[in-house]
Amino acid sequence: MSDVVSLNHGSGGSQMRNLIENIFAGKFGMSKPLTDSALLENEGYTMAFSTDSYVVDPLFFPGGNIGKLALCGTVNDLAVSGAIPLWISASFIIEEGFPLEDLERIADTMASEAIKAGVKIVTGDTKVVSKGKCDKLFITTAGVGIVKSGFEHISKGSMIKPGDKLIINGSLGNHAIAVLGARNNLGFSSKIESDCASLNHIIQNFFGECSEIHFMRDLTRGGLAAVLNEVAEMTSLGISVQEESIPVDEPVKGLCEMLGFNPLSLANEGKFLLISSGDESFKILDILRSHPLGKNAAIIGEITDEHEGYVVLKTATGGKRILEMPSGIDLPRIC
Amino acid sequence: MSDVVSLNHGSGGSQMRNLIENIFAGKFGMSKPLTDSALLENEGYTMAFSTDSYVVDPLFFPGGNIGKLALCGTVNDLAVSGAIPLWISASFIIEEGFPLEDLERIADTMASEAIKAGVKIVTGDTKVVSKGKCDKLFITTAGVGIVKSGFEHISKGSMIKPGDKLIINGSLGNHAIAVLGARNNLGFSSKIESDCASLNHIIQNFFGECSEIHFMRDLTRGGLAAVLNEVAEMTSLGISVQEESIPVDEPVKGLCEMLGFNPLSLANEGKFLLISSGDESFKILDILRSHPLGKNAAIIGEITDEHEGYVVLKTATGGKRILEMPSGIDLPRIC
Repeated sequence: MSDVVSLNHGSGGSQMRNLIENIFAGKFGMSKPLTDSALLENEGYTMAFSTDSYVVDPLFFPGGNIGKLALCGTVNDLAVSGAIPLWISASFIIEEGFPLEDLERIADTMASEAIKAGVKIVTGDTKVVSKGKCDKLFITTAGVGIVKSGFEHISKGSMIKPGDKLIINGSLGNHAIAVLGARNNLGFSSKIESDCASLNHIIQNFFGECSEIHFMRDLTRGGLAAVLNEVAEMTSLGISVQEESIPVDEPVKGLCEMLGFNPLSLANEGKFLLISSGDESFKILDILRSHPLGKNAAIIGEITDEHEGYVVLKTATGGKRILEMPSGIDLPRIC
Repeated sequence: MSDVVSLNHGSGGSQMRNLIENIFAGKFGMSKPLTDSALLENEGYTMAFSTDSYVVDPLFFPGGNIGKLALCGTVNDLAVSGAIPLWISASFIIEEGFPLEDLERIADTMASEAIKAGVKIVTGDTKVVSKGKCDKLFITTAGVGIVKSGFEHISKGSMIKPGDKLIINGSLGNHAIAVLGARNNLGFSSKIESDCASLNHIIQNFFGECSEIHFMRDLTRGGLAAVLNEVAEMTSLGISVQEESIPVDEPVKGLCEMLGFNPLSLANEGKFLLISSGDESFKILDILRSHPLGKNAAIIGEITDEHEGYVVLKTATGGKRILEMPSGIDLPRIC
């Protein structure tokens, strides 16, 4: 069935990119490369504008809930575009019969995360649909921020070049495993918590300190594998990654082996990839590690002028394999 | 059951206001009066930022579809705040199995309405949920605009005073009746089309021409009755409306009588209330009537210093009655 929308179209992989590029971006005349935030020139400076819908199932999971995701997710889309996030909108689609107590808990979480991130939720909307017409609660947030001068190119990656280093701020896969565990239908329980967090403060630590950051992107649906493949395609350069340098927490690693998941294609909600010059990479690593959200930061690989357009994973034993763009349904409704 | 969300909470009436004020606005620290757009001071000028989710059932109806609603609705929220709408985000929650052809039609409509309105759809998101977990398609748009200098007070109504005139740009109720008719389950078919349209151009005709506009608001869920009651409460002034001066198309009037609806509390998607000084009201009427979306514009009443906080409807026969804030479910999923 190629003429209907399938779960694959929402998975963050290649089918989703095709849907977005062929239908939405094409018809709406969006400029490429498609980024998480639109950058808008206005009165002599650059604004960032971003939106995401959240349909996570279940609504509450270790380390967060749908409200925390919705707040942090949009803050992060702005932050990795080099913007200081300022204003957030929040729109709620609620199923008839949803407990007001749960709605209050979720709104409380959003309010406290907004304070932590230093943003304001300034506008919103509420729609209610009959029982059975949506699954409990969906939240859509949008956000506006001001791009830090000198960081306008960050989301487009236009300055990425061979020799640049790949840096991530910590361990991968915790969000996806936390949500799966909370579904209670996968035969395991774990104490793994989602990494869901607002990244704007850790990113703002670079402002005024670093001038050779060439790219940032948060590692949500499709995980590191999706973002690296997008970078390889966007730049037509090669990417080489040292598998053993990628931090993955032991419990996550164990569950991934058991369940057949690749932690590199699992969703995160508090992790981002940064690409910088080699010269500046150690300074960046120090800045990241000095922040609680970056204490496991690591340099995981580099941009190359070999195997253009491909991401090559080098294993500890000296093997090499191509890390492909995730396709198919890894994990529906993970965010 | 007062401890769960009910359809009443989404109807645009008093229950919805309570939900929004008590849960969202309170927890998020939003400033009152709550308006359709947040106004944000930035670098010496004022931005407007607004969002709405669209869950209309059915997705296609005479005069429009969910995509047209989603585009025009957010454009209108910005426009009635005195802003020139510039950028729109669009986020899609899609049910597995939704026809790609329908998605393309809806995206085409959004694209062409964006061109008509002179706005750009610059960013978006796509989520897919399993069959049965949402009803076909929900769209959430957000929008950013720049408020025209001198119009910063428009959405708050802070300059409304006794003697001011109430003006609407045309007939009421067409959107709601068009959607009801398209549901095919109400025992009637009609040729009534939704009035769904972007109002920014007709509103921009006031810029540079009018200086005594004191308030604007689009007449969506809850219709004219909801907006007038909000104004009465917000200003602690009285409102007096001449019932026979309110334009309602004959077919709409007939169906409302048959079905027991009050056209004054039905949703519109291309109508707005404007409040101006008496002196400027005739000039405003001329400007409205010179535009295709305002040819049935009418002065329908005035602000008074009597019956403070109440909206009084004067009938053709000299009777008077209070026009109350709509409560309960008039029409779920009308937008």
